[in-house]
Amino acid sequence: MIVDRRIGLFILMRESLLTLTLLGAWDVFVVVMFQVFHQDWMEQPTLPVSLLGSAVALFLGVRNNAAYGRWWEARTLWGAITNNCRSFGRQAGSLLGGRPDLACAMAAYPYALRAALGRLDGSADVSRLLPPEMQGAIAGWNNQPNAILYQIGLAVNEEVARQGIDGAVHGQIDRILSDLANAQGGLERIRNTPLAIQFSLIPRLVANIFCVILPLSMVQTLGWITPLGSSLVGLLFVALDKIGSDLQDPFDNSPHAMPMRTMARTIEIDLLQPVDIPVGGPLAPVRGVQS
Amino acid sequence: MIVDRRIGLFILMRESLLTLTLLGAWDVFVVVMFQVFHQDWMEQPTLPVSLLGSAVALFLGVRNNAAYGRWWEARTLWGAITNNCRSFGRQAGSLLGGRPDLACAMAAYPYALRAALGRLDGSADVSRLLPPEMQGAIAGWNNQPNAILYQIGLAVNEEVARQGIDGAVHGQIDRILSDLANAQGGLERIRNTPLAIQFSLIPRLVANIFCVILPLSMVQTLGWITPLGSSLVGLLFVALDKIGSDLQDPFDNSPHAMPMRTMARTIEIDLLQPVDIPVGGPLAPVRGVQS
Amino acid sequence: MIVDRRIGLFILMRESLLTLTLLGAWDVFVVVMFQVFHQDWMEQPTLPVSLLGSAVALFLGVRNNAAYGRWWEARTLWGAITNNCRSFGRQAGSLLGGRPDLACAMAAYPYALRAALGRLDGSADVSRLLPPEMQGAIAGWNNQPNAILYQIGLAVNEEVARQGIDGAVHGQIDRILSDLANAQGGLERIRNTPLAIQFSLIPRLVANIFCVILPLSMVQTLGWITPLGSSLVGLLFVALDKIGSDLQDPFDNSPHAMPMRTMARTIEIDLLQPVDIPVGGPLAPVRGVQS
Amino acid sequence: MIVDRRIGLFILMRESLLTLTLLGAWDVFVVVMFQVFHQDWMEQPTLPVSLLGSAVALFLGVRNNAAYGRWWEARTLWGAITNNCRSFGRQAGSLLGGRPDLACAMAAYPYALRAALGRLDGSADVSRLLPPEMQGAIAGWNNQPNAILYQIGLAVNEEVARQGIDGAVHGQIDRILSDLANAQGGLERIRNTPLAIQFSLIPRLVANIFCVILPLSMVQTLGWITPLGSSLVGLLFVALDKIGSDLQDPFDNSPHAMPMRTMARTIEIDLLQPVDIPVGGPLAPVRGVQS
Amino acid sequence: MIVDRRIGLFILMRESLLTLTLLGAWDVFVVVMFQVFHQDWMEQPTLPVSLLGSAVALFLGVRNNAAYGRWWEARTLWGAITNNCRSFGRQAGSLLGGRPDLACAMAAYPYALRAALGRLDGSADVSRLLPPEMQGAIAGWNNQPNAILYQIGLAVNEEVARQGIDGAVHGQIDRILSDLANAQGGLERIRNTPLAIQFSLIPRLVANIFCVILPLSMVQTLGWITPLGSSLVGLLFVALDKIGSDLQDPFDNSPHAMPMRTMARTIEIDLLQPVDIPVGGPLAPVRGVQS
Repeated sequence: MIVDRRIGLFILMRESLLTLTLLGAWDVFVVVMFQVFHQDWMEQPTLPVSLLGSAVALFLGVRNNAAYGRWWEARTLWGAITNNCRSFGRQAGSLLGGRPDLACAMAAYPYALRAALGRLDGSADVSRLLPPEMQGAIAGWNNQPNAILYQIGLAVNEEVARQGIDGAVHGQIDRILSDLANAQGGLERIRNTPLAIQFSLIPRLVANIFCVILPLSMVQTLGWITPLGSSLVGLLFVALDKIGSDLQDPFDNSPHAMPMRTMARTIEIDLLQPVDIPVGGPLAPVRGVQS
Repeated sequence: MIVDRRIGLFILMRESLLTLTLLGAWDVFVVVMFQVFHQDWMEQPTLPVSLLGSAVALFLGVRNNAAYGRWWEARTLWGAITNNCRSFGRQAGSLLGGRPDLACAMAAYPYALRAALGRLDGSADVSRLLPPEMQGAIAGWNNQPNAILYQIGLAVNEEVARQGIDGAVHGQIDRILSDLANAQGGLERIRNTPLAIQFSLIPRLVANIFCVILPLSMVQTLGWITPLGSSLVGLLFVALDKIGSDLQDPFDNSPHAMPMRTMARTIEIDLLQPVDIPVGGPLAPVRGVQS
Repeated sequence: MIVDRRIGLFILMRESLLTLTLLGAWDVFVVVMFQVFHQDWMEQPTLPVSLLGSAVALFLGVRNNAAYGRWWEARTLWGAITNNCRSFGRQAGSLLGGRPDLACAMAAYPYALRAALGRLDGSADVSRLLPPEMQGAIAGWNNQPNAILYQIGLAVNEEVARQGIDGAVHGQIDRILSDLANAQGGLERIRNTPLAIQFSLIPRLVANIFCVILPLSMVQTLGWITPLGSSLVGLLFVALDKIGSDLQDPFDNSPHAMPMRTMARTIEIDLLQPVDIPVGGPLAPVRGVQS
Repeated sequence: MIVDRRIGLFILMRESLLTLTLLGAWDVFVVVMFQVFHQDWMEQPTLPVSLLGSAVALFLGVRNNAAYGRWWEARTLWGAITNNCRSFGRQAGSLLGGRPDLACAMAAYPYALRAALGRLDGSADVSRLLPPEMQGAIAGWNNQPNAILYQIGLAVNEEVARQGIDGAVHGQIDRILSDLANAQGGLERIRNTPLAIQFSLIPRLVANIFCVILPLSMVQTLGWITPLGSSLVGLLFVALDKIGSDLQDPFDNSPHAMPMRTMARTIEIDLLQPVDIPVGGPLAPVRGVQS
Repeated sequence: MIVDRRIGLFILMRESLLTLTLLGAWDVFVVVMFQVFHQDWMEQPTLPVSLLGSAVALFLGVRNNAAYGRWWEARTLWGAITNNCRSFGRQAGSLLGGRPDLACAMAAYPYALRAALGRLDGSADVSRLLPPEMQGAIAGWNNQPNAILYQIGLAVNEEVARQGIDGAVHGQIDRILSDLANAQGGLERIRNTPLAIQFSLIPRLVANIFCVILPLSMVQTLGWITPLGSSLVGLLFVALDKIGSDLQDPFDNSPHAMPMRTMARTIEIDLLQPVDIPVGGPLAPVRGVQS
């Protein structure tokens, strides 16, 4: 996630450079053809640009709302991971009477989840935090974060039996684990269900066609300054499409992705400080991007 | 659900071929009639195409939002099925002290649900996973997935009585079963309540009428290239209608339906791995489509 | 609710016939006046039809979103009734150890609720299912469905005391009753709070005025085919208004209302089959309409 | 809340009369100036009315969605008050074994809440229903409805201790009180946080400016019938602004406010009938308005 | 938050003064250049202003909806803080049998939260309310409000053990603490995740470019009154952008921020009045702004 506005503007410009160049080149080509070589077939007074424009706007509007909705839902679900990890930490301290190993195991959970969502290797962080016996127990499972929750559930169960803790209190801890499972499932749902292909492919196609037609419809009235007008409008539509495609996959390895690593680190700090395990500071953004 | 972008583009094109052909043929017919045979009655300078276009856009906007909302709600509810099945697996392992047969029964549940929602035969998967005595008990019930939940509830009850498990813990397990019933009811609601007929019929009708009128209003100014402009705009509106109708029935037997079989398989894996029952890998997409 | 597309199209046409006739008659009148009698005062070249059109579209957009939202919320709340009735059935069978009379009492609840929401007489179904002593206890109460929930709550209480069931389990059953009360309250809220009068009256008025002005602004350019263009556009706006007004009152006695009777029947089946009380099949749609 | 459509139309007209008169007078003034005195400076062929119109529409669209969202959220929260008061009544009857005084105290709660939200005096209803000892205990508190909930919580606590009721059952009752506190907090949030001043002031200003400019841009083409076209369009935009401002403050003392008094009465009936305390009928609307 | 409409209008004007001046100066420059010096290159009859305008509107529409959604979600989450603090107060009084020190500790919580969210120093209020031993325990923690919740959880745990309170009742109190942790996490999520840079940077850029182009496209037809038309339209688009940027960061130190200090004070009053600790009145707005 980009957190520095200047660098963000720079990144956006770098990403748009190719499109801008192509667009500008085509616009210049059209205007030269028309003004210098007088290609009459280009003289299309009223190509239905405005109808096309409103259809494109309709497509992009629906898509961008959906993409933003996905991104914000993903962020909200990570928020739920944060909250419930913290609540588990409080419960481990108060209801279970302190169990630093369980706080550590829970601190490993967001790292494992981040690795699974981003299809990365997270074993370094997980093996740093997860108690060794749990590491053995979850080896070979398909769904590593779910396996960690399962093992924590077993450990809580044993602790409850050992201390003779009341069932209602046990139920309250189990509810937090279920809430974590719900949030994790929601994140997996967003990763496994890409935005319907109609929404991700067609808007891009249509916006590009629109950009090709645009200068043809303007060249007669605007003449030599066509590229200015046409590129500006075209760039806007391309930018609208780009916003949608940047946001629609929040776990991708891009500067626009959710800062899962930073958030996992925050959870680790919130879990380990109360049980007096030394832990470093939060992650700083690298070149304006929080990863 | 289409997961491969190239194949997706191909599928979309194949599905749109007929419409494109008809549209193109009509456009060519209009332009030939006008340019060659000089049919003056076609000269309708200002047929109210833009007013019509905005009414169509209004219809399609509302419909597509509703259709996407239905699709995403269905997906979210299947996500809740996944999450709660997993949580039940964790509870069976920790709170009930391991009951592999209940994990198996729960693994049969999403297959039965998928069969009921898609009006398919799911007996092979169900009879593979469901314990035999439960299979006998649910025979003849109208609502098979609900029957499985009912039987699991009875079995949990017996286990709780046998082990003398605390009521609050029992309540926590029962809550998961209620949450599953809620998610199942939501999915049935979406299947049994098609999008109001006004939203599914009228937009298609209107988009088609719009496509018929479109070339008439363009032929005077665009001349021989009318089919290009008209087909492009028409295709966009037809595509907008198609997106809505693809998404509005998420359980249909189409490449755009939710991948219920794949998701049931994922649940099976997540439930059976912890209790050490051998289970194969997840389902791979077939020709770019996850079923 | 209309479930058959053909019959649905027929119903929609029948309902729109009068509007279509009036609209067409006015359009023909205008064109005849203008073309035959040359009424010059009709020549209003640029009546601000497009500004008016966008204001109307704004009104109808907001209203139809609100109306659809009401309809879908009502349907979702009925879904919650279904789910919680089922969960109560499971709890009566498992947690309370089977109480067929309570399952029957709960099966009477949706019939009473449907009667209260639709302002119908539902005593036949209620007296068929509700145990006689409860029928006596609820006589004279204003809110019959709430009274049934109250009596079920008392009966559960007695059963819990008799069997010495754990309080947490009791709490879990009570939660289902509270959830039913919440869903019922939501349905009553929608029935008792019609869509704000500004949203239900003004759009209709405005759409009608728009239809009256429409042919005046077209007759100069379109001439004899004015009625075609004008009626088409007018019909679309009237149809948009009609969709909203069909959906905004989901409990009315109309073919567009929610199929509350069918849903009550489904709940009855799901509740009585597990306790082996013979029960018929689900209700079939009558002439394409599920009531 | 207006419940009678005819009277509603009359109220809306009465409220719009002044605006309509001013608008019409200005329109007539413009047309007379232009047609009779030939003021040339008024001849502004293409004042950017359509650009202005779409900016106004954008403002009003966002505002009206927000205002309707506030209104409906407020209504939903009152619904939650209703539901939870009813559930508390059922719990007082079943779980606590009947406590008519607590049902009465809870019946006083919505009256106190309505008084606090509407900044009215509700002491008559509260002192009629609230047990005298509670009246003494809450005197002098800033937040009267919260004080009533607090006292009910204390009374429930004593009753639980006296009867030795299970903690889980107690927890279930406490949950209802927390849910009431949540709904109350939500209502206070809506009252204390007026719609951001940018949304409530600017749309009105802009709609008014728009109405002033409108006839200037039409008078050339429409001539003497300018006031008709201009007033119609202007009235629509003013009406759109008015809808938003009617809905944005749902607790104001206006015919468009939520019928809090009627709803408090309904709750009273639902709470007192089960404990056999005589209670009158629901409130009838007064001149088409439910207060 | 601005609560006085007059002062609000004044603040909005003051904030817009610079923009208005720059905009007006540019408009005047354009018109003078065109009318006096007859710069022909300015004569751009049909710069694609309407296409540009609709792209800008699309951008601003999506952004402002997102910004308003963030603001209202933040406000709703603070409402949840309020509600759960109150519920904790009721529970401390009833379930825990009165613990004024815990009510005080909870009253310190919103002050600490406000300080953390607004990156302010809140130690004065926190040290005034938080019991000294807790102040020692939380020193050095990164997340101060979370630390307070943790300490309250420990204190509740001890009290429960001392009085032998039922586990289910304990669970109910712990649920309130978890709900507080959820609301706090939500607020931190909004603060830590600024609106995606594409939504906050591009709309401003585009709106500004639009304002620069606007007079060029109007000067031919409007002549000397161009600045009036152009500034009005430009100001509207700039105002739309400003609304979004005012709302998108609800914890900033600006007159448009959420009144966190006032709300913390309200919570303090609601918590301390029941335990008879003297407390002052609510905070009054300062010059029309509630801070």
